[in-house]
Amino acid sequence: MTKEDLFEQIQKKQSFLCIGLDTDLKKIPPHLLRSNDPIFEFNKQIIDATHDLCVAYKPNIAFYESMGASGWNSLKRTLEYIPKEIFTIADAKRGDIGNTSKMYAKTFFETYNFDSVTVVPYMGSDSVKPFLDFEGKWAIVLALTSNQGGIDFQLLKDKENEMLYQKVLKKVQTYGPNIMFVVGATRAEYFKEIRKIAPDNFFLVPGVGKQGGSLEEVAEYGMNSYCGLLVNSSRGIIYASSSQDFAKAARQKSLELKNKMSQMLKNVSII
Amino acid sequence: MTKEDLFEQIQKKQSFLCIGLDTDLKKIPPHLLRSNDPIFEFNKQIIDATHDLCVAYKPNIAFYESMGASGWNSLKRTLEYIPKEIFTIADAKRGDIGNTSKMYAKTFFETYNFDSVTVVPYMGSDSVKPFLDFEGKWAIVLALTSNQGGIDFQLLKDKENEMLYQKVLKKVQTYGPNIMFVVGATRAEYFKEIRKIAPDNFFLVPGVGKQGGSLEEVAEYGMNSYCGLLVNSSRGIIYASSSQDFAKAARQKSLELKNKMSQMLKNVSII
Repeated sequence: MTKEDLFEQIQKKQSFLCIGLDTDLKKIPPHLLRSNDPIFEFNKQIIDATHDLCVAYKPNIAFYESMGASGWNSLKRTLEYIPKEIFTIADAKRGDIGNTSKMYAKTFFETYNFDSVTVVPYMGSDSVKPFLDFEGKWAIVLALTSNQGGIDFQLLKDKENEMLYQKVLKKVQTYGPNIMFVVGATRAEYFKEIRKIAPDNFFLVPGVGKQGGSLEEVAEYGMNSYCGLLVNSSRGIIYASSSQDFAKAARQKSLELKNKMSQMLKNVSII
Repeated sequence: MTKEDLFEQIQKKQSFLCIGLDTDLKKIPPHLLRSNDPIFEFNKQIIDATHDLCVAYKPNIAFYESMGASGWNSLKRTLEYIPKEIFTIADAKRGDIGNTSKMYAKTFFETYNFDSVTVVPYMGSDSVKPFLDFEGKWAIVLALTSNQGGIDFQLLKDKENEMLYQKVLKKVQTYGPNIMFVVGATRAEYFKEIRKIAPDNFFLVPGVGKQGGSLEEVAEYGMNSYCGLLVNSSRGIIYASSSQDFAKAARQKSLELKNKMSQMLKNVSII
């Protein structure tokens, strides 16, 4: 998918919502456990209920992987079910030496046909570049993450007072096009600076909702003329209800976020 | 597995060799492709031919994952086949926010029963600590990697002239016990300094063989009184021959490394 295709979706749907499919057998409504493939059945109903409100779906691969081979089958069925115009993100946080990163890229871009994968920058250029060799596919590289431990290394300053995540934003842009960055919503105060360093890249923004990040602040400081944001909510949407009405509740939560986003896009005349 | 168990194996086998099972359908001898599970069949023959010469096996998960569900089944069969006394490493380079890292830890420690997983430190404490909650299991955290891109961020210096990988070595030790570090053999000149910062931790050392690292230098600067090293070779061993004699060739290459290691252990009176 091109940046223009993604922007078109954002305008059309008046939304930059990404829904995280962190689907966990222990958390889905119990009545689904009777189905042959409860994980897929849950995802299917979530997708049916929300696909007109979001522009991206982001399965976190840990949840599928933890179930062994059957989890990967559920993931494959889920990917095939997501409408083609919706951007798909394998939240896998992969990265390895060159020939191995290439295998990971093939896994997510060919075996599963995702549009993008989240990638860890710690191992540098040859760990990221293999993800850039696939036309229309994207590497979404971790810059500043939303979790508490994010400060352990990402905020370390060098002699010029530049922090590690800033180095990452600068250096990784030189690796090639088709790069997005993960920037956590819990660090909203950094967004202004980050947008200066990476004016054109899309940011995948986790941390709104359960983790406490502010959608308003993220939009105020993070938007660019292509919107440039994919704001993710996972648990806040998919587990809004643990009963039979879970899909309806997920739609309601998505709609609330979408309506806020729609207003924000109007405020800056993107729609 | 405890550190003492691992040391006992090293003394008994006179070896600190780890064999990387980076098993690739495109590289294994063609006659195996007729079997029901060529990946497992290849691994089985490699294990049969080398298990008395090495103390660890390290499947790189990318190779299995890239084959979808069937790859995970081959991995499971491989894990079940490896003799219990041999240390197993899931070279997965995982790490995510706390609840997600926990899922990854469960995957490799419970679903697949590995002794250890390689973990990326970029997201800090709460991304690493969930791997430390399993008794007798180990997190092997990336410090200084063997690939070219390793210099992009890992060697960045802060105001006190301390490099990122040194910060990682120091900080990650505070997360808990049962931590090892990945230190690439291609950076042998750093081993002396690294051993000072982390005197007691085991190091998993990739990069000997195809990547050009020197076993002699690694041993000279990296050993501690528990040996403290697991030196990995993957392609140099498992693809030593691409014919019917691949297992025999793998044994030969392993034996050469094991004999060198045996001498090195004798030189420092560990055996």
